[in-house]
Amino acid sequence: MAGRPMANSAKTQPSIRILFGAAVALGPGKVDLLESIAETGSISAAARTMKMSYRRAWTLVDSMNKCFCSDLVSTATGGQGGGGAAVTDLGLEVLARYRAIEAKAARSVEAEIADFADLLVEPPR
Amino acid sequence: MAGRPMANSAKTQPSIRILFGAAVALGPGKVDLLESIAETGSISAAARTMKMSYRRAWTLVDSMNKCFCSDLVSTATGGQGGGGAAVTDLGLEVLARYRAIEAKAARSVEAEIADFADLLVEPPR
Repeated sequence: MAGRPMANSAKTQPSIRILFGAAVALGPGKVDLLESIAETGSISAAARTMKMSYRRAWTLVDSMNKCFCSDLVSTATGGQGGGGAAVTDLGLEVLARYRAIEAKAARSVEAEIADFADLLVEPPR
Repeated sequence: MAGRPMANSAKTQPSIRILFGAAVALGPGKVDLLESIAETGSISAAARTMKMSYRRAWTLVDSMNKCFCSDLVSTATGGQGGGGAAVTDLGLEVLARYRAIEAKAARSVEAEIADFADLLVEPPR
C-alpha cells in the first residue's frame, strides 16, 4: 500500500544547546552524562553506559565544572577508573532546569509539529 | 580576575529533531544540507560546503525525500558529482517551517535561559 500521511504520530525531540561564547557550555551529550553520573554514582560507569571512554567522560565533566560558578560533579579520590563521583546540589539543579527548558521548548511547538507531520509518509516511499 | 556571572550573555541554539518512529526524519544536519542545496543548486557543492562526502550527502537527500509525501530535492541528470539539484516547493516549505519551529522553540525559553546564565562564569574557572 502506498504511503499515507502520518497524521499526528511524528514526535519532536528538541535538544537545546546553551552556548558560552563559541563553546557549548551545556548540550544534550553533557546533560545525558550528568544524568548518568547521578544514576550510577561513578564517572566510569556513566562512561560505559554512554559508550564513551573514561578519558572523554572525564574531559566533559571537567569542562562542565569549569563553566559553572561551582562544580556540578565532585569526584572522590581514586583517579583514573576508580573512586566515586557525585552530582552536587548545583549539578542536580542544572540538570532539572535543563530538562525543564527542553520540555517547555518541545511543548511550545507541539501544534506546529503535529501540522508538519501531515507532510511525512509512513512507511517511507 | 575571578570569574563573574555572565549575566545574560548565554545564548541558546535549540536544535529540533523530528522523529519518524525511531528514525530522525528531519534534524539539524539534514536541514542545513537542504539549505545549502537551495543556496548552491548542487548536492556536490553543498556537500563540499558542509565538509561531507558526496555519497553521504546523496544518502541524506534520498532518505529525506523518501520520508515526505513528495521529493524535497529534485536532481537533474548527471549522476555522481554531476548534474544540478533544486529544492522543490515542498522542500522550501519544509525548510521554512522547520526554521520557524526552531525559532519559536528558542523564543519560548528565552527567559529561562537568561536566568540559567547566572550560573555560568566567564572566563571558565
